[in-house]
Parts: sequence; structure tokens; C-alpha cells
Amino acid sequence: MAGSGKLVILSVDHGLEQGPARSFAKNPDAYDPAYLFELAIESGCSAHAAPLGAIESCVRDFAGEIPLILKATTTAQVDDALRLGCSGISFTLRWSGSVQGNKMYEEIQEAARRAKQLGLVVFIGVHTKGEGLNGKTGEPAVDVVADGAHIACQLGAHIVQVGVPAAVIEQEAAKYIYEAQGIRVKNLVERARHLVQSSFNGRRIILFSGGELKGTPEMFEEAKQLAQGGAFGTMMGRNALQRPRKEAVAFLHGVMEAYTGRGL
Amino acid sequence: MAGSGKLVILSVDHGLEQGPARSFAKNPDAYDPAYLFELAIESGCSAHAAPLGAIESCVRDFAGEIPLILKATTTAQVDDALRLGCSGISFTLRWSGSVQGNKMYEEIQEAARRAKQLGLVVFIGVHTKGEGLNGKTGEPAVDVVADGAHIACQLGAHIVQVGVPAAVIEQEAAKYIYEAQGIRVKNLVERARHLVQSSFNGRRIILFSGGELKGTPEMFEEAKQLAQGGAFGTMMGRNALQRPRKEAVAFLHGVMEAYTGRGL
Amino acid sequence: MAGSGKLVILSVDHGLEQGPARSFAKNPDAYDPAYLFELAIESGCSAHAAPLGAIESCVRDFAGEIPLILKATTTAQVDDALRLGCSGISFTLRWSGSVQGNKMYEEIQEAARRAKQLGLVVFIGVHTKGEGLNGKTGEPAVDVVADGAHIACQLGAHIVQVGVPAAVIEQEAAKYIYEAQGIRVKNLVERARHLVQSSFNGRRIILFSGGELKGTPEMFEEAKQLAQGGAFGTMMGRNALQRPRKEAVAFLHGVMEAYTGRGL
Amino acid sequence: MAGSGKLVILSVDHGLEQGPARSFAKNPDAYDPAYLFELAIESGCSAHAAPLGAIESCVRDFAGEIPLILKATTTAQVDDALRLGCSGISFTLRWSGSVQGNKMYEEIQEAARRAKQLGLVVFIGVHTKGEGLNGKTGEPAVDVVADGAHIACQLGAHIVQVGVPAAVIEQEAAKYIYEAQGIRVKNLVERARHLVQSSFNGRRIILFSGGELKGTPEMFEEAKQLAQGGAFGTMMGRNALQRPRKEAVAFLHGVMEAYTGRGL
Amino acid sequence: MAGSGKLVILSVDHGLEQGPARSFAKNPDAYDPAYLFELAIESGCSAHAAPLGAIESCVRDFAGEIPLILKATTTAQVDDALRLGCSGISFTLRWSGSVQGNKMYEEIQEAARRAKQLGLVVFIGVHTKGEGLNGKTGEPAVDVVADGAHIACQLGAHIVQVGVPAAVIEQEAAKYIYEAQGIRVKNLVERARHLVQSSFNGRRIILFSGGELKGTPEMFEEAKQLAQGGAFGTMMGRNALQRPRKEAVAFLHGVMEAYTGRGL
Repeated sequence: MAGSGKLVILSVDHGLEQGPARSFAKNPDAYDPAYLFELAIESGCSAHAAPLGAIESCVRDFAGEIPLILKATTTAQVDDALRLGCSGISFTLRWSGSVQGNKMYEEIQEAARRAKQLGLVVFIGVHTKGEGLNGKTGEPAVDVVADGAHIACQLGAHIVQVGVPAAVIEQEAAKYIYEAQGIRVKNLVERARHLVQSSFNGRRIILFSGGELKGTPEMFEEAKQLAQGGAFGTMMGRNALQRPRKEAVAFLHGVMEAYTGRGL
Repeated sequence: MAGSGKLVILSVDHGLEQGPARSFAKNPDAYDPAYLFELAIESGCSAHAAPLGAIESCVRDFAGEIPLILKATTTAQVDDALRLGCSGISFTLRWSGSVQGNKMYEEIQEAARRAKQLGLVVFIGVHTKGEGLNGKTGEPAVDVVADGAHIACQLGAHIVQVGVPAAVIEQEAAKYIYEAQGIRVKNLVERARHLVQSSFNGRRIILFSGGELKGTPEMFEEAKQLAQGGAFGTMMGRNALQRPRKEAVAFLHGVMEAYTGRGL
Repeated sequence: MAGSGKLVILSVDHGLEQGPARSFAKNPDAYDPAYLFELAIESGCSAHAAPLGAIESCVRDFAGEIPLILKATTTAQVDDALRLGCSGISFTLRWSGSVQGNKMYEEIQEAARRAKQLGLVVFIGVHTKGEGLNGKTGEPAVDVVADGAHIACQLGAHIVQVGVPAAVIEQEAAKYIYEAQGIRVKNLVERARHLVQSSFNGRRIILFSGGELKGTPEMFEEAKQLAQGGAFGTMMGRNALQRPRKEAVAFLHGVMEAYTGRGL
Repeated sequence: MAGSGKLVILSVDHGLEQGPARSFAKNPDAYDPAYLFELAIESGCSAHAAPLGAIESCVRDFAGEIPLILKATTTAQVDDALRLGCSGISFTLRWSGSVQGNKMYEEIQEAARRAKQLGLVVFIGVHTKGEGLNGKTGEPAVDVVADGAHIACQLGAHIVQVGVPAAVIEQEAAKYIYEAQGIRVKNLVERARHLVQSSFNGRRIILFSGGELKGTPEMFEEAKQLAQGGAFGTMMGRNALQRPRKEAVAFLHGVMEAYTGRGL
Repeated sequence: MAGSGKLVILSVDHGLEQGPARSFAKNPDAYDPAYLFELAIESGCSAHAAPLGAIESCVRDFAGEIPLILKATTTAQVDDALRLGCSGISFTLRWSGSVQGNKMYEEIQEAARRAKQLGLVVFIGVHTKGEGLNGKTGEPAVDVVADGAHIACQLGAHIVQVGVPAAVIEQEAAKYIYEAQGIRVKNLVERARHLVQSSFNGRRIILFSGGELKGTPEMFEEAKQLAQGGAFGTMMGRNALQRPRKEAVAFLHGVMEAYTGRGL
């Protein structure tokens, strides 16, 4: 959002994980990747993030109208971002509680190095998931998300994306220190603040994703609290694309206002 | 088919999976790859698709007579297509219901990137198969095929090839949305339409394969319904090559008429 | 054999699989790789095929006296063939009944591509072996060998080498078609003919290996029948090298006469 | 430490293994990587070692003020060190008691070769850990640590880093020789001496890490004994960064005095 | 040894497998890699073989005084040999009774090819070890060692190194041929002769390693018998380095006399 230092990015790759019907049938316009470009532009988003095929099929029609971020996982590599005129590239870090023996770190490293050579902004999206974590409770735990965000920073992310963290401490070894040092994570403002701190104390930009489909007031409230805790903005998909066009534009404007604290 | 925007491609690699006798003994002319070039040319197919060895052994004799598509899986790589004067290259995407942890995506990505640098048309053939799918029922389920087609598009396919989808919803998580949103998939016209929608709403070309050997009227009816649902054409093998030469030419003409809606 | 279109190649790498004593002790001259060069030259073989070390240790002494084929499996790669002045290179395709998920195809592909760039003749030797096959009965079954030969052709072999096939149909799915279409494989002449047909109907050269040590009349009879069925010749090792020198030369001459149908 | 031949290096990558809260909450200044640069500079450390993200986010602000060592494991590769103006690079050798079949050796080899081409000092940090070792008792055993240090030297380390070894002989096969040859390892001075001997008898620099958080007098005593045994210095993290700034500077000065044997 | 055609090489990498104490504590001078250079030079060895770190730390001090062989396994690659001024490079072939499916062959192949491009002498040390072999009885069996030596030759070794073979035939399939053909392997002279024969009948140089620490007369007798059977010399480590300096020099002289059959 011009002059605010805040970012609201329309980010869509749900079809890769959940298939097109589950992602787009609620608002069939969204089957067409051009619709998503139009929505991001019309609502004034900071950027549009999408997988290779979607960008490749539309980029000529929207050249220069909005910064693009190539979601590299599964469908693309750094050099595609250059070829397609993208400003940034986004990698996924699956964080399961340990950095040991994992080829993924090496792959992100190499890709991030190449991206920086090409002048691209490097996004790392942290997905907390894995055997070491206690499913629906443990994956969004604030200590787990904070660990993942810190690792993304150490891997060289310019911008880190995480899910909204829950008021849970998952790791036994972490519980003691959160209590002993009085790290506050009960409300969302506090958790946002802890996440900013865990991302080099604000030296790196941290964005929160929109998550599951929610009601509009609930989303606005969440965005306000995150912003109050120092969050730099959001990467949002489902909550925007599954609403009809007009409603989606209004919704995105509301989110922007929540982050910037001013009307549009 | 000139001016129709429809494609009928003679595509033959059955010997790789099923051996030469099961593929060619019904019509022994087809043991010789030159016969397949002749059949594609004589019947006026849009292109001929075959593995490396078949193309390499015949390409000098038929240079310039028909566009060639190199079937890259198992026998070839992108640079072979250039060396052999092919116009396109075809990759196989084995889709088993999840994009996680799969080296195949990386391989198709890299090959497709190289193919585009060389100016080749990129075909991705979707094979729905794998542990996560319920065998003969689940593999051709329309939701599964739609997911695969969408992923092929996101991987950067110019042209997607799928099997003819069945009127079954396989994935539990998908059933709800098909019902709730009233996505119609009972008849083949509807399923073809849903597949076109799932392929970037028609921004990418989707072709249907011929499948098991069938009777001529049955094939023509299937082609007509697929065409009515918006299909761009077919990649066909067994149904053409296992008929004697004259019959095969007439058969391919019938399929072309079904897609273009006009006589030849 | 000049003017006959037939090939008899002395091919020796038994020491790699069975050790030197089992391979050479019956005729200790053969411990020395130079002896094998001499035998191939003296008997008038079409070429001599051997692993890297054997060729590297003798090539200067026999430069230009006989075409050499580098057996690349285990000991060498394509570029060694260039460095050692070889005319061809030979790869091994282990065929176990399925082309799925096998890195070997990719390796042969890449090596064959490079070999063709260097102007080398590409041999693919088909070894039918693997879990999917029923050991001593199933491995030499004519349908299995035919499948392997066809795949070698599709992988781009100029020359395919197979073992002598047995009058057995191994694969359930193949039995029906051999019966229904009346494919004749009872005698060796018929099996040779079916193998030639399965190798692009004669567009690719197919050679048969000598196999286990056998009596001289038996070998001559086998060669005559294979030749009658259209075989292009043989790659022979054990049967030549384990006979004493003079006997071996006479034996190779006999094999050549069986294939060419004329005296030397 | 100028003129002393001793090295005290502030080395921090704890957040990667234990997350930011457990690493930094005791002294929240340390969430910011710039604080660690300042601490290393202010206290007069020989160098500062950190992962890629930390260095990348601060290097412009502190250019030329202190030699930097890039901790390459997980986050970076050799060429990043060049790009970020680092003087050295640090690899981790996980030593579990056997050099067999381990890709890690190959990776360190290649990286160290490249680092030397670029003129970088090569650090190898030995982590004794693995199935072959008896957990808390076996991992710090002096024979295990000595084996790891020797391997690091053979891999081409200029500087080896190890944990402080315990007065335990872990490996059955080693016990006999330590007794028979009267190798003394009961006190820390002796163990330091044995480690120096095991690192090419002093031809390579060996540093000891600070380990778990300890009291100040205990740390100073440990440093004095290590220095007396010939240790070249220390790479220290937790013990410095978890103390408040002033206390940390004084603490680091004390460690320096222990190694150099003189006041600052 | 000048003019004799025999080679006695001081080869030391025991610290990598057994740690420094077990390797060097009997003669602590040997902790310092410079001592091993001095011992090889002083005793007049044909060459000194050692891992990367040892050579790298001493090579400037002994440049031009003795040919060096880089032991590449675990610590180095071919290009290091060039950088360090070595004349040869040594690879390890772990031979377990089968050449199937083994990436090691490919690695040795590639490294040997590169070494020959750089003009280096290629050593392959055969270690008979693995599941297929019957431990202490089967690993040194003469048929197993002969198979390994032959494979090393076929892989392109200029010089093959093996352990001293035992009077045992391990492989069932080999027993028959050793008996039927009357291959004599009862005494060491015969076994040495069989090994020379198995190494391209003397076209390739075969050296025997010194093995476990033994008494001096026993070592001299072994060397004499090996030499009588045609062995080209020895690569020796433990037996030289674990004796005190003067004794070690005298010992190496004795071994040299045993091989050359003349006084020094």
C-alpha cells in the first residue's frame, strides 16, 4: 500500500493442492487465471503471486500492471521468474521441527542464491507440518511457527510468510523458556509481536497468510490485531477468490485498511 | 484439422508398456514404425507422436510430411526433439492425488523449460494412477482427472492429454463441493466441459485419449460428445493401428468428422 | 562378413561377472586381453567387444586391425570409446518386465545420445532378468525377449543383442495374443523371425549371443536356424575363448559360414 | 588476539537448532543479529561466525570492522562467503564412528576445495553424534573426539573445532591402546594435549567450543586448562550472548586473558 | 627401486579408519604427517601415499623429494592431486562379489578417466568385504581377491593393490573350476602367480599390502614368496610406521631387498 510500508498480496495456488473444483467452484470466474490478475489489479493489491502455468498463460495480457511473484514450489524454478518478468519468487519451507538431514534446505539455499543474482525478492513461506509435530494443535503453535520464521530468515528470505500462530507452546523444551522469560503469547497482538521479534527483530518482513475461509468481520479483526503487533501485511487467497468479484474487492480494501489504519 | 481448431493425433507407444505382440500382432504392418507414419499422413492426422527409436528410424523418409511429437518418457529428452526435427514433445505426469515430495514434478519442469527455449510445443499426458487412488474406479474419476489436468496446466503444458473421465467422484474431500456447487458430471458432455474448465477455463488445449479398443460407432459417439463439451480433439493409438489400413483411415476420418462437425 | 550383411563379433567381458578363473582357466591364453584381440583378428570377426581395461591395455598394439566396441556397462562411458578409437559402444538393458520408475532408461538414453553425437554405433544388449520374471523358465521366454528387443529399439539402438529365446510364453497377458493371432514360436527359425519383426520389422539389426558353452555341431545348427529366421549375426564369447586357439578359429569360421551360407 | 596466536571467536547459530526463544529470550537484544556483530567487535573477538541470513542482513553496516566466518551448514554454500565478504567458512562434520558410505564427506571435500580456490580459511566443526555412539557418555568421549578431529584434518581443515572432551574412552577397540601406550586423558590439560596431538601434532589449529551455559569462574578455569594443554582458542556462543551486554564483554575479556595468559 | 621394476610404497591412512591413537600411539612421531614423509624419503621408498590433509599440510616442505600418491577415498578428488603436485591417485574398490547396481563403479570410472586426462597414475586398491562374503575366511580367499583384481584392471587401473590372499576358495561356483583346471593356490608363491595372471597376465602392475602388524622375519619371508610369484611390490603402512624410526628404515630396506633380490 503506497507509503504505508504494508503489503497485501493476492496469492493463489490452491488448485495444486486441492484441485480446481474445491478451489474455484464457489466462484467459477476463478477457474480462469486472468480473473485473479484482474482481481489483484482492481483491488489495488501490492502484488499477485501464482504458479508458473497461471502466470505464463496471462502475463502478456497484464504486463506491467502489477508486480508478480512466481510460486516456485512444484511448478517452477528461479529462471522462470526472470523469463516471465516477475519481481519476486516464493519458496516453501516445510518445517517439521528439525534442520537435520534435509535436502530441502540445500534446494532453497541454491534457489535463493540464484534469485538474488537475478535481483529477485525472495519470499519463503513457512509450512509447519511433519511427524515431529502434534497435528492440528502443534502445527500452528506459536513456538513452532517462530522457529520456522527464524530459519527462513537465516536461509536468506527477504520476506517470510507464516500462518496465523495459535496460543499454544508445542515443544516441551520450549515451554520452560517461554514461562521463565515471561514471553507473552496469549493474545494475537502478542503473538504477532513475538513473530516479528523472531524474524531478526524486524530486520526481515513477515507476512501472515489468510488461512481457512472466514467471515468478513473476523478477518478484519484478525488483520487489525496482527497489524497492531507489527505485522507487515498478508498473503491472501481463498478468502478473496471465493467471494464474488465485487464482494472480494470490498473485502480486500477492508483488509488493507486494517493494516494501514487508514481508509482507501 | 485445417481451420477447425481441432486436433486428431496418431500417438503410438504401446510397445513400450505392453510389448510388440500385444500392440501390433492384430495388424502386423504396425510392427514397422514407417507404417504408422504412413497411416498418420494418409489419413490427414494433425501430427504423429512416437518414442525416440520409431522416429529416429523413419524421420529421414518422411521429413516435412507431418508434424512430429516426440514422446519423451522412457526413451528421450528434449534435445532429441530438436535433433529429430519434431515440433512438440510429450511428457507423462503420473498423478496419484498429491503433489508432495515428488521428483517427477521437478523433471517435467526442467524439461518443459528447455522445450520452450527450443520453441517446442509442450504436451503433458496425465496418467491417473497410484496408491492414493481406488484402482479401476478411482483412477478415471472425473475429480481425479480434473485435478491432474489442472496441475498439468500449472506445470506449463500448452496441450494437456487425459483419459476419458468416468461419472465418479473419487475423493471424499471433493464430493461435498461437487454436490454443494452443483457441478454436473453425469454425462460425457458435462464431464468434457468440466475438464475444459479445469484447464484454465479453456486457456489451455485439452485432448482426450482413445483408450481401450472399442467399436467404431461407440468411438464416434464418444468423440461427438467430447467435442460438444468443448474438447479440442484426441490423441489416438490402439483404435487406429489395430484396424487394417483402409479401415483405419476411414475410422480416423470418422473421428475427425465427429470433432469438426463436418465431412472431409 | 564382407558383403554378406552378417556380423560375427567376438565379445568378452565374462571376467567381470564370473571372475578370471571361471572365464579363462580352460584356455589360460585368454587371461591376456591381447590374446582375444589376436583371436578376433585371425578368425576374421567383424569386430571385437570388450570392457575398458582390456581395450586400454591393448589398443595401441592392434590399432586399425579390427573395429572395436567398448562394453560400457560397469567400466566405461561414451567418451572413453572416443579416446580409445572404438567404432561402437555397448550398453546393457536389464529388462524385468516393466519400464516404470527406472533410472537405467535415463542413463542409457543419455549415453546413447552422446554416442550418436560422437558418431558411434550404439549396441544395446538386452538381459532379461528380474523379480517379475519366472527365473530360468521366464527369463528366456520368447515374449519377454521380444519385449526387451522392442524397447532397445525404441531407446535408439542401432544394433540389439539378445539371448537365444526359448519356446515359452511367460507373461499371462501375452499368452492370449500369441494364440489368438497365431504367432508361431515353436521352432528356432520362427522365434528368430518373431524377434526380427519385434525389432522394427528388420529396420534395426538384431544379433543373438552364444550363451552357455555348447558342442560345435549344436552351435552350428543353432546359428543356421537363427540365420534362416533372419538374424543378422551373433556376439559370441565363451564358446570361442574357452576352446584352444586353432579350434577356436575353426569354430568361428564355422559360425560365419552358418550365417553367411557360404564357405570362407 | 593480536600477537598471541590465540583465537576467540563469537559463533552464533543456536536459533537454527533450538529456535529463537530458547536461544535469545534470556537477553532479547540478541534476537537482532546486529547486536551480535556489535558484541564481537566491542569485546575484541578475533572473528564473528554466523549463518547466511544473519550476515546478509548486517554485513553492509559492519563492513571491514571484524573478520566474518560464514557457517555454511543448512543455510549457505562457499560462494555465499565470497559474495558476503567473509574471510572463512565453517562446515559441520557429524562424526558417528565410521567413515563408510557417507555422502557428507564428499560434500565437505568439494566445498573445502572450492573454498581454498577462493582463498577462504576452512573451519570444520566436529559434532560427535550418531547410532554408533553411546549418547551422553560416548559422544564427548576423548577417543571419539580425537578421531573426529583427525578426520577433519585429513579432510583439509585449516581450523578444527571440537567440543570439550570428557575423560571417557568410548570405543572398545581404542581402550586397549590408550592403556597399553599410557595415553593420559584424566585431566583436561592432558585431554587438550591429546587433541592437539591428534590434529597433526599441532600442524592444524584446534579450537574448543564453549558448550552449555556455565558459571563464569568455571568457564575461565576451563579455558586456562585448555590453553595449558596447547589449545589455540575457542568458538563461543551461548555463554556470551545469554549474558547482558556489559557482562558479556567482560566475560569475553576474561576468556581471552585465560587463553593468552595476559591482561587486555 | 631404481632399475628393478619393483615398487615399495609407504602408504598411510589408518587414522581415517581407526583413529589417531590406534594408528600412531605406538610411535608418537607418526602423529605428525611430516614424519611419514621423512621416513619414506630416508628409506628410499618408491613413493608416499596419504590422504589429502596430510599431503596438504606437508607438501611445500618436501616438494620434489619423493613421488606422492593421493589417497582419494573419503578426503579428496582427482583435481586435488593436480593441485598438490601428486604423481598418482588411489581409489578404493570395495569388492563384495557382484558388480550389479553399484554406484561405486561409476564413481571410480569417472575419477579414473579424469585422472588419465591429467596424466596421473591410477591406483585401485581392492578391499574384499561385504554381505556376500564369509567374513574372515571368505574376504581374503584367493578366488575373491583374484576377481577383485581383475575388475580393478577392467576399470582401468594402472596399478592394482590387494591384500595377501589366503589358501581358501570361497565361492561355490569357483571351487569346481579351480579343481578341474588344477589351478594351484596352496602356497603363497602360487597365489601370487595366480593374482598376476588374473591381472591381465602381467599387463597390469599388482602390489600387495602389508596387512596386520607382523614380526620382521615373517614379513621378509612373505615378501620373498610374493616376489617369487611375480608380485611387483608392496604398499605398506602399519608395519613401517609403528616401528621406531631407525628400525622402520632398516625394516623397509629388508622388504626392498626381498622384492629386488639384491642388497641396498
